[in-house]
Amino acid sequence: MMFPRYDTVELVFEGADRLPVGAEPPFSVRLRNGAEEIVVPGFWDGGTTYRVRVCPQSDGTWTWEVEGARTALDRSSGSFEVTPGAAHGPVRVAHRFHFAHADGTPYRPVGTTAYNWLHQDEPLFTQTVDDIAEVGFDKLRFMVFPQGGGYIEHVPALMPFEKTDGHWDVSRPVPEFFQHLDRAVEMLGARGIQADVLIFDAYDRGQFGLDALTEEEDAVYLRYLVARLSGYAHVWWSLCNEFDQLERPDDRWDRTGALLASVDPHDHLRSIHNWIEIYDNNQPWVTHASIQNGAATEDFGRANLYRDVWKKPVVLDEIKYEGDIPDRWGHLDGQELVHRFWITTVAGCYASHGESFLTESGSLHMVEGGVLRGESPARIAFLRGILDDLVVPGLDPIDKWDDPAYVAGWPRQQYVQYLGRSAPASWSFRLPVGQPGESPEEGDVFEVDVIDTWNMTVTPVGRRFTLTEVTRNEAFDRDSAPVDLPAGKPIALRITRVEV
Amino acid sequence: MMFPRYDTVELVFEGADRLPVGAEPPFSVRLRNGAEEIVVPGFWDGGTTYRVRVCPQSDGTWTWEVEGARTALDRSSGSFEVTPGAAHGPVRVAHRFHFAHADGTPYRPVGTTAYNWLHQDEPLFTQTVDDIAEVGFDKLRFMVFPQGGGYIEHVPALMPFEKTDGHWDVSRPVPEFFQHLDRAVEMLGARGIQADVLIFDAYDRGQFGLDALTEEEDAVYLRYLVARLSGYAHVWWSLCNEFDQLERPDDRWDRTGALLASVDPHDHLRSIHNWIEIYDNNQPWVTHASIQNGAATEDFGRANLYRDVWKKPVVLDEIKYEGDIPDRWGHLDGQELVHRFWITTVAGCYASHGESFLTESGSLHMVEGGVLRGESPARIAFLRGILDDLVVPGLDPIDKWDDPAYVAGWPRQQYVQYLGRSAPASWSFRLPVGQPGESPEEGDVFEVDVIDTWNMTVTPVGRRFTLTEVTRNEAFDRDSAPVDLPAGKPIALRITRVEV
Repeated sequence: MMFPRYDTVELVFEGADRLPVGAEPPFSVRLRNGAEEIVVPGFWDGGTTYRVRVCPQSDGTWTWEVEGARTALDRSSGSFEVTPGAAHGPVRVAHRFHFAHADGTPYRPVGTTAYNWLHQDEPLFTQTVDDIAEVGFDKLRFMVFPQGGGYIEHVPALMPFEKTDGHWDVSRPVPEFFQHLDRAVEMLGARGIQADVLIFDAYDRGQFGLDALTEEEDAVYLRYLVARLSGYAHVWWSLCNEFDQLERPDDRWDRTGALLASVDPHDHLRSIHNWIEIYDNNQPWVTHASIQNGAATEDFGRANLYRDVWKKPVVLDEIKYEGDIPDRWGHLDGQELVHRFWITTVAGCYASHGESFLTESGSLHMVEGGVLRGESPARIAFLRGILDDLVVPGLDPIDKWDDPAYVAGWPRQQYVQYLGRSAPASWSFRLPVGQPGESPEEGDVFEVDVIDTWNMTVTPVGRRFTLTEVTRNEAFDRDSAPVDLPAGKPIALRITRVEV
Repeated sequence: MMFPRYDTVELVFEGADRLPVGAEPPFSVRLRNGAEEIVVPGFWDGGTTYRVRVCPQSDGTWTWEVEGARTALDRSSGSFEVTPGAAHGPVRVAHRFHFAHADGTPYRPVGTTAYNWLHQDEPLFTQTVDDIAEVGFDKLRFMVFPQGGGYIEHVPALMPFEKTDGHWDVSRPVPEFFQHLDRAVEMLGARGIQADVLIFDAYDRGQFGLDALTEEEDAVYLRYLVARLSGYAHVWWSLCNEFDQLERPDDRWDRTGALLASVDPHDHLRSIHNWIEIYDNNQPWVTHASIQNGAATEDFGRANLYRDVWKKPVVLDEIKYEGDIPDRWGHLDGQELVHRFWITTVAGCYASHGESFLTESGSLHMVEGGVLRGESPARIAFLRGILDDLVVPGLDPIDKWDDPAYVAGWPRQQYVQYLGRSAPASWSFRLPVGQPGESPEEGDVFEVDVIDTWNMTVTPVGRRFTLTEVTRNEAFDRDSAPVDLPAGKPIALRITRVEV
């Protein structure tokens, strides 16, 4: 067998018995390629069928052998070949505040949200992914468990576990449910969309009772879910959306998060998302912060404060929604949401989109998915293009507590400045200077592009700028004429150093 | 012997030997008053003199006995009487984001800074405290170790330890040095000023070498310092100013902080203060955040973000200085610094003052102390008066991520709104509504005071306001005429519910 690197290699086993799903996997597989080694748990997939999924991170001949089997299996060792491919592998934290694929390719999260998407019927189910891909989002946040509460309008028939005596029996997962989840994750992957999987459900509100599992039951489910999905390169884990809607002590989340980190053989990204109380993202299991706080993105100088306290990437995963419902969180206009994305960008953070126009069913896109209708998605996808085109690993505030212009970038290489919803009529070349040793120097030459964030145009200024004066905190080209700008428009500047 | 409650009770012992100061105290004293019990370490104070200092938190007959003596002492047990007094006791965290004395009296930190004050000669030394007290500050941040670097201009003769083979010998503290420190702390206490003691020194810069002690040496000094000063009610501990100027791994600070918490019998407040990298204030030993970040206080909606991530009181302990030096951190004007204090206040946080006018000696008040000359101190003391007059435990943002007016207060009881450096000509009665269950109700009656934050006046509007409309997020008095304001002035409003 031959697989491209970072593909999902699935090994299928026939077991002698059907085992109840428990705290320990039915067996594990140890895989080796030279000095590389990974141990991946197997999982039950109906009847006496068992599977293992692994995402190989290196080329060559991988050999594998079964360990700790609790049922006799039809085979116990084997091998497969991995060849170079076009895929870039799982996303990791890079440069403290940013992301890159395992092969080093930068990844810029520009995602959207459809919490209850997994539980929708066709054609809505596939249409959602088609539209997200067409618009150009590169990540989707969705829940494994079905959503209760307002704006739901659709209750799924397929549930994750069987019931025993009226109680969810996590030892008896429903294979069809999780096979549907597999296909959903694969569908996203096929379209280049990261699957940000919300594991537990604060929106159950007692409707299904999946929020009433014990910590031990949660752990059984968590291990099973990880065994199924960890082999997909593009999976991210989010422990819960608005975790603090559930009345659980923080240390239960700490333990569950630490368990997640310990059982995931591929070490995917891990976060937890807040409602009112922010989680302690300094916990070692957390790889990046996933924050709800629209206000932090409403103005300059806010979201960047979160970076400093956690020293991890910050993704603002709910900053309110473009839509027309009366709830305060659900009636931003498109301009305001795009504005918030750009503010977030120059704060050195990332944001997620969501849409809350009332749909034909009485639901919202952020709940059920469907076709996006807002004005922001195209502009946010345009921003994604700008981020993907960066020649640097990410944008960091250059002079984080002192730059009145809030310029972000990578010292001496590339900078982005967002001038807000209403640009002035002209801009004179000026850069902030960051830490000593990273300073641009007199004679450095830059090109500038004028970006209309709403009309989605990138216009090169067409002349070069040479630094004539570099002080401790600022750098100027005093000899060049100012750049004319379309006053009153939401304009950003991209400032890139060129070799001369 | 009779002592008022919260006074420092000092027991003096004559020992048979002079012991080197080490990781263990020379002896401890166990004190009991009914069910209350505290174990306080003794300390060596020159020759064969030893002392114990305790701050009794309850009235009655306290009995005590020596434990674990490593030298014969002239007495081993005794008792004293504690009677009610006027003092309020050590400051503790109260209501998550605020402070109160041990007896429940709210404490509002409005402090200033003179890092190297301890090391100045008279008359400057006493003059500093006289002036701080006269202006009305209630806390002083100062370092135990002498400061190196710029703007120092004075090197003290008295150092904390003797030297052995050219190396500081922490087993041989200099009693005269620490007796001077005792008197300094007592001088502050006598004037009602909390002593915010900066234990380690990131400003040594190799000049004295006190930044080069090992972790074990630091621990010996820390235990000795705590044994000496813990018995003073008004002591706060700050592990270090700009801790990240020292190239030490964070886990050394974690351990030293945890040690501090474990050895302080009176459990005084504990913090650590950053330069560029912010410490993990979620560490259990940290009681409150002590943050350097001027930008967080420059505009609304920033400093409050820090509250959410640590769920502890936030004191902005360096927000730049009123002064006239060229450094960016040292040339705020008085208006700007006062503005920042008020923004910090309605963010539900606290701020510290410091002054950086060049003094006659070539130093700065924030280094050496002296007489304050800026325009801000009187206005900051005025703010302290406003805080001390609050009828509620503290000011919390009422609608933390959604109120465009940034009103802080205590739901349904009292509110403060700061209108910025340039107030509008009028204000119509409006309050944000916080969480359900805390909402003001129609018919609630309020009085409003107009506070001129610069001219230091409080002007009652002179009529009452009755809520006529309470929505999910806002409350209004639609029937009353707007309040006329001095347009263009830096105005705050105090809005207090009255019983009718």
